[in-house]
Amino acid sequence: MNFSSKLLENAVNEMSQLPGIGKRTALRLVLFLLNQPKIQTKELSHSLLELVENVILCKSCYNISDLETCEICSNSKRDKSIICVVEDIRDVMAIESTGQFNGIYHVLGGKISPIEGIGPDQLNINSLIVKVKTNEISELIFALSATMEGDTTNFYIYKQLDHDIKITTIARGISVGNELEYTDEVTLGRSIIKRIPFENSIKNNL
Amino acid sequence: MNFSSKLLENAVNEMSQLPGIGKRTALRLVLFLLNQPKIQTKELSHSLLELVENVILCKSCYNISDLETCEICSNSKRDKSIICVVEDIRDVMAIESTGQFNGIYHVLGGKISPIEGIGPDQLNINSLIVKVKTNEISELIFALSATMEGDTTNFYIYKQLDHDIKITTIARGISVGNELEYTDEVTLGRSIIKRIPFENSIKNNL
Repeated sequence: MNFSSKLLENAVNEMSQLPGIGKRTALRLVLFLLNQPKIQTKELSHSLLELVENVILCKSCYNISDLETCEICSNSKRDKSIICVVEDIRDVMAIESTGQFNGIYHVLGGKISPIEGIGPDQLNINSLIVKVKTNEISELIFALSATMEGDTTNFYIYKQLDHDIKITTIARGISVGNELEYTDEVTLGRSIIKRIPFENSIKNNL
Repeated sequence: MNFSSKLLENAVNEMSQLPGIGKRTALRLVLFLLNQPKIQTKELSHSLLELVENVILCKSCYNISDLETCEICSNSKRDKSIICVVEDIRDVMAIESTGQFNGIYHVLGGKISPIEGIGPDQLNINSLIVKVKTNEISELIFALSATMEGDTTNFYIYKQLDHDIKITTIARGISVGNELEYTDEVTLGRSIIKRIPFENSIKNNL
Protein backbone atom coordinates (compact mmCIF):
# COMPACT_ATOMS: atom_id res chain seq x y z
CA MET A 1 0.00 0.00 0.00
CA ASN A 2 1.16 3.51 -0.85
CA PHE A 3 0.28 5.82 1.99
CA SER A 4 0.20 9.55 1.37
CA SER A 5 0.80 10.21 5.05
CA LYS A 6 3.26 8.72 7.53
CA LEU A 7 0.79 9.29 10.37
CA LEU A 8 -1.85 7.33 8.49
CA GLU A 9 0.61 4.55 7.76
CA ASN A 10 1.60 4.28 11.44
CA ALA A 11 -2.01 4.13 12.58
CA VAL A 12 -2.87 1.47 10.01
CA ASN A 13 0.19 -0.59 10.94
CA GLU A 14 -0.65 -0.49 14.64
CA MET A 15 -4.31 -1.29 14.02
CA SER A 16 -3.43 -4.25 11.82
CA GLN A 17 -1.52 -5.87 14.72
CA LEU A 18 -4.90 -6.80 16.18
CA PRO A 19 -6.01 -10.38 15.49
CA GLY A 20 -8.22 -10.80 12.43
CA ILE A 21 -7.60 -7.23 11.25
CA GLY A 22 -5.64 -7.01 8.01
CA LYS A 23 -4.23 -3.87 6.39
CA ARG A 24 -7.35 -3.14 4.37
CA THR A 25 -9.69 -3.46 7.34
CA ALA A 26 -7.28 -1.40 9.44
CA LEU A 27 -7.35 1.34 6.80
CA ARG A 28 -11.15 1.30 6.78
CA LEU A 29 -11.28 1.58 10.59
CA VAL A 30 -8.71 4.37 10.72
CA LEU A 31 -10.43 6.38 7.97
CA PHE A 32 -13.72 5.90 9.82
CA LEU A 33 -12.15 7.42 12.93
CA LEU A 34 -10.80 10.32 10.87
CA ASN A 35 -14.33 11.08 9.68
CA GLN A 36 -15.74 11.06 13.21
CA PRO A 37 -15.36 13.85 15.77
CA LYS A 38 -11.90 13.74 17.38
CA ILE A 39 -13.45 13.03 20.76
CA GLN A 40 -14.33 9.49 19.66
CA THR A 41 -10.70 8.59 18.96
CA LYS A 42 -9.65 10.25 22.22
CA GLU A 43 -12.17 8.21 24.19
CA LEU A 44 -11.13 5.00 22.47
CA SER A 45 -7.44 5.62 23.15
CA HIS A 46 -8.13 6.72 26.69
CA SER A 47 -10.26 3.69 27.55
CA LEU A 48 -7.65 1.27 26.17
CA LEU A 49 -4.83 2.96 28.09
CA GLU A 50 -6.90 3.08 31.30
CA LEU A 51 -7.63 -0.62 30.90
CA VAL A 52 -4.06 -1.84 30.43
CA GLU A 53 -2.74 0.49 33.11
CA ASN A 54 -5.30 -0.08 35.83
CA VAL A 55 -7.05 -3.39 35.40
CA ILE A 56 -6.08 -6.12 37.84
CA LEU A 57 -6.83 -9.79 38.27
CA CYS A 58 -8.93 -10.87 41.24
CA LYS A 59 -6.42 -12.28 43.75
CA SER A 60 -8.74 -15.19 44.47
CA CYS A 61 -10.13 -16.32 41.10
CA TYR A 62 -7.95 -14.49 38.51
CA ASN A 63 -10.99 -12.97 36.84
CA ILE A 64 -10.47 -9.45 35.44
CA SER A 65 -11.51 -6.95 38.05
CA ASP A 66 -11.32 -3.30 39.08
CA LEU A 67 -10.79 -4.28 42.72
CA GLU A 68 -8.50 -6.74 44.50
CA THR A 69 -11.37 -9.16 44.92
CA CYS A 70 -13.84 -9.38 42.06
CA GLU A 71 -17.58 -8.81 42.33
CA ILE A 72 -18.32 -12.52 42.19
CA CYS A 73 -15.82 -13.57 44.89
CA SER A 74 -16.89 -10.74 47.19
CA ASN A 75 -20.61 -11.40 46.72
CA SER A 76 -21.91 -12.91 49.97
CA LYS A 77 -24.83 -14.57 48.15
CA ARG A 78 -22.56 -16.81 46.07
CA ASP A 79 -21.79 -20.32 47.28
CA LYS A 80 -18.01 -20.29 47.96
CA SER A 81 -17.88 -24.07 48.32
CA ILE A 82 -18.52 -24.70 44.60
CA ILE A 83 -15.70 -23.75 42.22
CA CYS A 84 -16.14 -23.72 38.45
CA VAL A 85 -12.79 -24.06 36.64
CA VAL A 86 -12.65 -22.17 33.30
CA GLU A 87 -10.01 -21.24 30.76
CA ASP A 88 -10.48 -17.50 30.50
CA ILE A 89 -12.69 -14.63 31.46
CA ARG A 90 -14.88 -14.98 28.39
CA ASP A 91 -16.00 -18.31 29.78
CA VAL A 92 -16.91 -16.64 33.08
CA MET A 93 -19.02 -14.13 31.14
CA ALA A 94 -20.66 -16.90 29.12
CA ILE A 95 -21.60 -18.95 32.19
CA GLU A 96 -22.71 -15.86 34.11
CA SER A 97 -25.06 -14.93 31.29
CA THR A 98 -26.87 -18.29 31.64
CA GLY A 99 -27.84 -17.40 35.21
CA GLN A 100 -27.54 -21.13 36.09
CA PHE A 101 -24.50 -21.05 38.37
CA ASN A 102 -24.27 -19.59 41.85
CA GLY A 103 -20.81 -20.69 42.92
CA ILE A 104 -17.46 -18.99 42.29
CA TYR A 105 -14.93 -19.36 39.50
CA HIS A 106 -11.26 -20.11 39.01
CA VAL A 107 -9.75 -18.77 35.79
CA LEU A 108 -6.79 -20.90 34.63
CA GLY A 109 -5.67 -18.43 31.96
CA GLY A 110 -5.51 -21.12 29.25
CA LYS A 111 -5.16 -24.87 29.00
CA ILE A 112 -2.21 -27.25 28.94
CA SER A 113 -0.96 -27.36 25.36
CA PRO A 114 2.49 -28.85 24.67
CA ILE A 115 2.22 -27.74 21.01
CA GLU A 116 1.89 -24.10 22.04
CA GLY A 117 4.46 -24.59 24.81
CA ILE A 118 1.96 -24.03 27.60
CA GLY A 119 2.64 -26.24 30.61
CA PRO A 120 0.89 -26.41 34.00
CA ASP A 121 3.30 -23.86 35.47
CA GLN A 122 2.11 -21.09 33.15
CA LEU A 123 -1.47 -21.58 34.31
CA ASN A 124 -3.17 -20.77 37.60
CA ILE A 125 -3.28 -24.42 38.60
CA ASN A 126 -1.18 -24.45 41.77
CA SER A 127 -3.29 -21.71 43.33
CA LEU A 128 -6.38 -23.80 42.55
CA ILE A 129 -4.91 -26.87 44.27
CA VAL A 130 -4.00 -24.77 47.32
CA LYS A 131 -7.47 -23.20 47.35
CA VAL A 132 -9.19 -26.58 47.23
CA LYS A 133 -6.95 -28.04 49.95
CA THR A 134 -7.18 -25.11 52.37
CA ASN A 135 -10.86 -24.24 52.04
CA GLU A 136 -14.14 -26.05 52.58
CA ILE A 137 -14.82 -26.95 48.96
CA SER A 138 -17.72 -29.31 48.27
CA GLU A 139 -17.55 -29.47 44.47
CA LEU A 140 -15.16 -28.66 41.65
CA ILE A 141 -16.75 -28.27 38.21
CA PHE A 142 -14.54 -28.54 35.12
CA ALA A 143 -15.92 -26.23 32.42
CA LEU A 144 -13.07 -26.33 29.91
CA SER A 145 -13.45 -26.69 26.17
CA ALA A 146 -14.24 -30.16 24.83
CA THR A 147 -10.84 -30.58 23.16
CA MET A 148 -7.84 -32.76 23.81
CA GLU A 149 -6.10 -29.85 25.55
CA GLY A 150 -9.16 -29.25 27.73
CA ASP A 151 -9.36 -32.93 28.66
CA THR A 152 -5.62 -33.06 29.41
CA THR A 153 -5.94 -30.06 31.72
CA ASN A 154 -8.95 -31.57 33.49
CA PHE A 155 -7.04 -34.81 34.03
CA TYR A 156 -3.89 -33.06 35.26
CA ILE A 157 -5.84 -31.16 37.91
CA TYR A 158 -7.85 -34.26 38.81
CA LYS A 159 -4.61 -36.18 39.53
CA GLN A 160 -3.37 -33.46 41.90
CA LEU A 161 -6.40 -33.58 44.13
CA ASP A 162 -7.55 -35.82 46.97
CA HIS A 163 -10.67 -37.48 45.83
CA ASP A 164 -12.86 -36.80 48.80
CA ILE A 165 -14.43 -33.82 47.09
CA LYS A 166 -16.96 -34.10 44.29
CA ILE A 167 -15.38 -33.42 40.90
CA THR A 168 -17.73 -32.95 37.98
CA THR A 169 -17.53 -31.79 34.39
CA ILE A 170 -20.16 -29.92 32.41
CA ALA A 171 -22.43 -32.12 30.28
CA ARG A 172 -21.43 -32.76 26.68
CA GLY A 173 -23.95 -33.76 24.06
CA ILE A 174 -25.93 -32.32 21.20
CA SER A 175 -26.66 -28.61 21.50
CA VAL A 176 -30.15 -27.48 22.35
CA GLY A 177 -31.94 -26.67 19.08
CA ASN A 178 -29.53 -28.66 16.91
CA GLU A 179 -30.67 -31.07 14.20
CA LEU A 180 -29.25 -34.58 14.64
CA GLU A 181 -28.11 -34.88 11.03
CA TYR A 182 -25.84 -31.83 11.33
CA THR A 183 -24.23 -32.89 14.62
CA ASP A 184 -20.69 -34.25 14.28
CA GLU A 185 -20.22 -38.00 14.73
CA VAL A 186 -18.10 -37.86 17.88
CA THR A 187 -20.59 -35.68 19.75
CA LEU A 188 -23.53 -37.76 18.57
CA GLY A 189 -21.83 -41.06 19.40
CA ARG A 190 -20.90 -39.81 22.84
CA SER A 191 -24.40 -38.52 23.50
CA ILE A 192 -25.78 -42.01 22.79
CA ILE A 193 -23.27 -43.70 25.09
CA LYS A 194 -23.90 -41.13 27.84
CA ARG A 195 -27.67 -41.18 27.47
CA ILE A 196 -29.64 -40.19 30.56
CA PRO A 197 -33.02 -41.34 31.95
CA PHE A 198 -35.80 -39.47 30.18
CA GLU A 199 -37.29 -38.36 33.51
CA ASN A 200 -34.05 -36.51 34.30
CA SER A 201 -34.15 -34.68 31.00
CA ILE A 202 -37.69 -33.43 31.72
CA LYS A 203 -36.83 -32.42 35.26
CA ASN A 204 -33.83 -30.32 34.27
CA ASN A 205 -35.22 -28.93 31.06
CA LEU A 206 -34.38 -25.24 30.84
CA MET B 1 -22.83 -9.08 28.50
CA ASN B 2 -21.90 -9.09 32.16
CA PHE B 3 -18.53 -7.41 32.59
CA SER B 4 -16.58 -8.04 35.74
CA SER B 5 -14.71 -4.76 35.29
CA LYS B 6 -15.95 -1.27 34.43
CA LEU B 7 -12.63 -0.53 32.67
CA LEU B 8 -13.07 -3.58 30.47
CA GLU B 9 -16.67 -2.63 29.71
CA ASN B 10 -15.66 0.91 28.68
CA ALA B 11 -12.90 -0.36 26.40
CA VAL B 12 -15.22 -2.89 24.76
CA ASN B 13 -17.94 -0.28 24.28
CA GLU B 14 -15.53 2.16 22.65
CA MET B 15 -14.01 -0.53 20.44
CA SER B 16 -17.43 -1.71 19.27
CA GLN B 17 -18.19 1.77 17.89
CA LEU B 18 -15.90 0.92 14.98
CA PRO B 19 -17.70 -0.25 11.82
CA GLY B 20 -18.06 -4.01 11.50
CA ILE B 21 -16.87 -4.63 15.07
CA GLY B 22 -19.56 -6.04 17.34
CA LYS B 23 -19.35 -6.50 21.11
CA ARG B 24 -17.93 -10.02 20.88
CA THR B 25 -15.18 -9.06 18.43
CA ALA B 26 -14.43 -5.95 20.51
CA LEU B 27 -14.04 -8.15 23.60
CA ARG B 28 -11.68 -10.46 21.72
CA LEU B 29 -9.56 -7.52 20.53
CA VAL B 30 -9.44 -5.91 23.98
CA LEU B 31 -8.50 -9.17 25.71
CA PHE B 32 -5.81 -9.69 23.08
CA LEU B 33 -4.35 -6.27 23.95
CA LEU B 34 -4.48 -7.16 27.66
CA ASN B 35 -2.37 -10.25 26.95
CA GLN B 36 0.24 -8.29 24.99
CA PRO B 37 2.94 -6.06 26.51
CA LYS B 38 1.48 -2.70 27.54
CA ILE B 39 3.69 -0.93 25.01
CA GLN B 40 1.55 -2.28 22.16
CA THR B 41 -1.61 -0.62 23.47
CA LYS B 42 0.33 2.57 24.13
CA GLU B 43 1.63 2.66 20.58
CA LEU B 44 -1.79 1.97 19.13
CA SER B 45 -3.41 4.73 21.19
CA HIS B 46 -0.60 7.12 20.48
CA SER B 47 -0.65 6.56 16.72
CA LEU B 48 -4.43 7.07 16.56
CA LEU B 49 -4.24 10.27 18.61
CA GLU B 50 -1.32 11.57 16.55
CA LEU B 51 -3.29 10.90 13.39
CA VAL B 52 -6.50 12.68 14.34
CA GLU B 53 -4.62 15.59 15.91
CA ASN B 54 -2.02 16.22 13.24
CA VAL B 55 -3.13 14.89 9.89
CA ILE B 56 -4.22 17.49 7.35
CA LEU B 57 -5.78 17.45 3.92
CA CYS B 58 -3.67 18.61 1.00
CA LYS B 59 -4.91 22.13 0.23
CA SER B 60 -4.85 21.39 -3.46
CA CYS B 61 -6.30 17.88 -3.89
CA TYR B 62 -7.80 17.07 -0.44
CA ASN B 63 -5.77 13.89 -0.18
CA ILE B 64 -4.66 13.00 3.37
CA SER B 65 -1.20 14.42 3.93
CA ASP B 66 1.37 15.27 6.57
CA LEU B 67 2.21 18.54 4.79
CA GLU B 68 0.13 21.39 3.36
CA THR B 69 0.69 20.06 -0.14
CA CYS B 70 0.71 16.29 -0.55
CA GLU B 71 3.55 14.27 -2.07
CA ILE B 72 1.70 13.81 -5.34
CA CYS B 73 0.78 17.48 -5.86
CA SER B 74 4.30 18.62 -4.95
CA ASN B 75 6.03 16.04 -7.17
CA SER B 76 7.52 17.93 -10.14
CA LYS B 77 7.44 14.77 -12.27
CA ARG B 78 3.65 14.51 -12.18
CA ASP B 79 1.60 16.02 -15.01
CA LYS B 80 -0.43 18.79 -13.35
CA SER B 81 -2.63 19.25 -16.40
CA ILE B 82 -4.40 15.91 -15.93
CA ILE B 83 -6.75 15.63 -12.95
CA CYS B 84 -8.28 12.36 -11.85
CA VAL B 85 -11.46 12.90 -9.82
CA VAL B 86 -12.03 10.27 -7.10
CA GLU B 87 -14.36 9.77 -4.16
CA ASP B 88 -11.94 9.21 -1.34
CA ILE B 89 -8.32 8.58 -0.48
CA ARG B 90 -8.65 4.82 -0.76
CA ASP B 91 -9.30 5.36 -4.48
CA VAL B 92 -6.10 7.41 -4.74
CA MET B 93 -4.19 4.55 -3.13
CA ALA B 94 -5.83 2.01 -5.46
CA ILE B 95 -4.99 3.97 -8.61
CA GLU B 96 -1.46 4.77 -7.38
CA SER B 97 -0.80 1.09 -6.83
CA THR B 98 -1.54 0.38 -10.52
CA GLY B 99 1.36 2.65 -11.55
CA GLN B 100 -0.65 3.62 -14.65
CA PHE B 101 -1.43 7.25 -13.86
CA ASN B 102 0.99 10.14 -13.80
CA GLY B 103 -1.36 13.11 -13.30
CA ILE B 104 -2.72 14.55 -10.09
CA TYR B 105 -5.90 13.81 -8.13
CA HIS B 106 -8.89 15.63 -6.74
CA VAL B 107 -10.60 13.90 -3.82
CA LEU B 108 -14.31 14.78 -3.63
CA GLY B 109 -14.81 13.25 -0.18
CA GLY B 110 -17.84 11.24 -1.29
CA LYS B 111 -20.48 11.33 -4.01
CA ILE B 112 -23.81 13.08 -4.39
CA SER B 113 -26.40 10.94 -2.61
CA PRO B 114 -29.80 12.47 -1.84
CA ILE B 115 -30.73 9.35 0.18
CA GLU B 116 -27.82 9.90 2.56
CA GLY B 117 -28.40 13.65 2.50
CA ILE B 118 -25.12 14.42 0.72
CA GLY B 119 -25.46 17.29 -1.74
CA PRO B 120 -22.80 18.97 -3.93
CA ASP B 121 -22.06 21.55 -1.21
CA GLN B 122 -20.77 18.89 1.21
CA LEU B 123 -18.24 17.70 -1.38
CA ASN B 124 -15.06 19.33 -2.73
CA ILE B 125 -16.75 20.15 -6.05
CA ASN B 126 -16.55 23.95 -6.10
CA SER B 127 -12.81 23.88 -5.53
CA LEU B 128 -12.50 21.46 -8.46
CA ILE B 129 -14.47 23.79 -10.76
CA VAL B 130 -12.29 26.73 -9.69
CA LYS B 131 -9.13 24.66 -10.19
CA VAL B 132 -10.16 23.62 -13.69
CA LYS B 133 -11.14 27.17 -14.68
CA THR B 134 -8.06 28.92 -13.30
CA ASN B 135 -5.34 26.43 -14.33
CA GLU B 136 -4.13 24.96 -17.57
CA ILE B 137 -5.99 21.68 -17.39
CA SER B 138 -5.94 19.44 -20.47
CA GLU B 139 -7.97 16.50 -19.21
CA LEU B 140 -10.35 15.63 -16.40
CA ILE B 141 -10.78 11.91 -15.68
CA PHE B 142 -13.82 10.75 -13.73
CA ALA B 143 -12.86 7.70 -11.64
CA LEU B 144 -15.93 7.39 -9.44
CA SER B 145 -17.71 4.17 -8.62
CA ALA B 146 -19.96 2.72 -11.31
CA THR B 147 -23.17 3.37 -9.36
CA MET B 148 -26.08 5.75 -9.82
CA GLU B 149 -24.57 8.12 -7.24
CA GLY B 150 -21.23 8.03 -9.04
CA ASP B 151 -22.87 8.75 -12.40
CA THR B 152 -24.95 11.57 -10.88
CA THR B 153 -21.83 13.17 -9.46
CA ASN B 154 -19.98 12.84 -12.77
CA PHE B 155 -22.89 14.48 -14.59
CA TYR B 156 -23.23 17.29 -12.05
CA ILE B 157 -19.55 18.23 -12.42
CA TYR B 158 -19.74 17.85 -16.20
CA LYS B 159 -22.58 20.38 -16.37
CA GLN B 160 -20.57 22.96 -14.39
CA LEU B 161 -17.64 22.95 -16.78
CA ASP B 162 -16.93 24.61 -20.10
CA HIS B 163 -16.52 21.88 -22.59
CA ASP B 164 -13.29 22.96 -24.19
CA ILE B 165 -11.31 20.54 -21.99
CA LYS B 166 -11.24 16.82 -22.55
CA ILE B 167 -13.47 15.01 -20.04
CA THR B 168 -13.12 11.25 -19.82
CA THR B 169 -14.26 8.46 -17.56
CA ILE B 170 -12.43 5.26 -16.69
CA ALA B 171 -13.37 2.26 -18.86
CA ARG B 172 -16.11 -0.02 -17.64
CA GLY B 173 -16.39 -3.59 -18.80
CA ILE B 174 -15.62 -7.09 -17.68
CA SER B 175 -12.77 -7.40 -15.20
CA VAL B 176 -9.45 -8.82 -16.36
CA GLY B 177 -9.43 -12.53 -15.49
CA ASN B 178 -13.22 -12.78 -15.13
CA GLU B 179 -15.27 -15.57 -16.71
CA LEU B 180 -18.08 -14.27 -18.93
CA GLU B 181 -20.73 -16.49 -17.37
CA TYR B 182 -20.18 -15.00 -13.92
CA THR B 183 -20.22 -11.37 -15.05
CA ASP B 184 -23.45 -9.51 -14.25
CA GLU B 185 -25.80 -8.75 -17.15
CA VAL B 186 -25.52 -4.98 -17.04
CA THR B 187 -21.73 -5.02 -17.18
CA LEU B 188 -21.68 -7.65 -19.92
CA GLY B 189 -24.37 -5.87 -22.00
CA ARG B 190 -22.53 -2.59 -21.70
CA SER B 191 -19.21 -4.18 -22.65
CA ILE B 192 -20.79 -5.46 -25.88
CA ILE B 193 -22.28 -2.06 -26.74
CA LYS B 194 -18.99 -0.29 -25.97
CA ARG B 195 -16.82 -2.86 -27.76
CA ILE B 196 -13.48 -1.57 -29.04
CA PRO B 197 -11.38 -2.43 -32.15
CA PHE B 198 -9.36 -5.57 -31.43
CA GLU B 199 -6.13 -3.80 -32.44
CA ASN B 200 -6.67 -1.31 -29.61
CA SER B 201 -7.09 -4.07 -27.07
CA ILE B 202 -3.77 -5.63 -28.11
CA LYS B 203 -1.98 -2.29 -28.10
CA ASN B 204 -3.11 -1.33 -24.60
CA ASN B 205 -2.93 -4.74 -23.06
CA LEU B 206 -1.35 -4.51 -19.65
